[in-house]
Amino acid sequence: MNERQRARRPGGRSARVGAEVHQAVTDLIGERGYGHFTIGEVAARAGVADSSIYRRWGNLETLLADVMLTRLNAQSPMPDTGSLAGDLRTYAAAVAREITGPDGLALLRLAVALSNDSQHAVRARDDLRDERTRQLQSMLDRARERGEPAPDALEVLDHVLAPMYIRVLFDAGELTPEYVDGLVDRLL
Amino acid sequence: MNERQRARRPGGRSARVGAEVHQAVTDLIGERGYGHFTIGEVAARAGVADSSIYRRWGNLETLLADVMLTRLNAQSPMPDTGSLAGDLRTYAAAVAREITGPDGLALLRLAVALSNDSQHAVRARDDLRDERTRQLQSMLDRARERGEPAPDALEVLDHVLAPMYIRVLFDAGELTPEYVDGLVDRLL
Repeated sequence: MNERQRARRPGGRSARVGAEVHQAVTDLIGERGYGHFTIGEVAARAGVADSSIYRRWGNLETLLADVMLTRLNAQSPMPDTGSLAGDLRTYAAAVAREITGPDGLALLRLAVALSNDSQHAVRARDDLRDERTRQLQSMLDRARERGEPAPDALEVLDHVLAPMYIRVLFDAGELTPEYVDGLVDRLL
Repeated sequence: MNERQRARRPGGRSARVGAEVHQAVTDLIGERGYGHFTIGEVAARAGVADSSIYRRWGNLETLLADVMLTRLNAQSPMPDTGSLAGDLRTYAAAVAREITGPDGLALLRLAVALSNDSQHAVRARDDLRDERTRQLQSMLDRARERGEPAPDALEVLDHVLAPMYIRVLFDAGELTPEYVDGLVDRLL
């Protein structure tokens, strides 16, 4: 979140514009994929001026990462069930649902596409990764505070998230509930 | 490999054209990324007619997958060291070297980009995945024939390849030799 975003009032016109711009991005990603639309096209579809988008997000990649983060936080929030096994199972199941859903592959491909040539893209990807890692770390810290042994966030990425992402990206195997639980159990 | 490719003489003009086209694709992927060049541009850079490319590969995605497979087979051939642990460690180390090398990220992003909207792309991706899976399966079958317990190919994807791919795609952690060996040991 940058200075300008912090300065926005919650709700009101700013929130409406934000929601419309996010929706326009989601639609364009689904229809054309990353790299095949411009800020001008997002603005036209959202019914706002290009300058509103530049002022708020600065560039397309930062906007894309913001859309992804908002969506991840809404669809796969970090759970707090009282046990690490419960938290990780709930989280893994939400991620599996999200990435196998209607826009799941497009979202994953977007995250990968941000591993890009451009500095804006790489920075947006790093910010997104760091923010989600911070959230995951809080969940793991809560477990440690309860006295549960906990893996670190990178181990969750390696052994729970990575296999699910790659199965979806390469259409290499189903994410059944048993499989997803099994990844968590194997890690713990 | 399609009928036309089978009919080609090894060596000679056909092999030279193939090598030039592959090099042109590798250069264009590095410079522009997938989705930002056409068969016409590949042909121009390779100094061949567009029709030669269409005749041999049919479409851009099949050509891209052929470039990737040729490269993977050259850089990370399936080893045969006499033990499964040796084979998997050698293979994992070769993959790690490849994906952290100069074009590694571009290649990975290309594989992901083939998880695409177009039928050609999805088919090319599936063929590539299936061919590498077959090779991996042969390595695992050899281990079983020697009486060694062996995971299946999907488990190698889940627990050895996926964490390495995702670390590189998201720039989320280093692939040290100890880490890569650890993935193999954890699986076995």
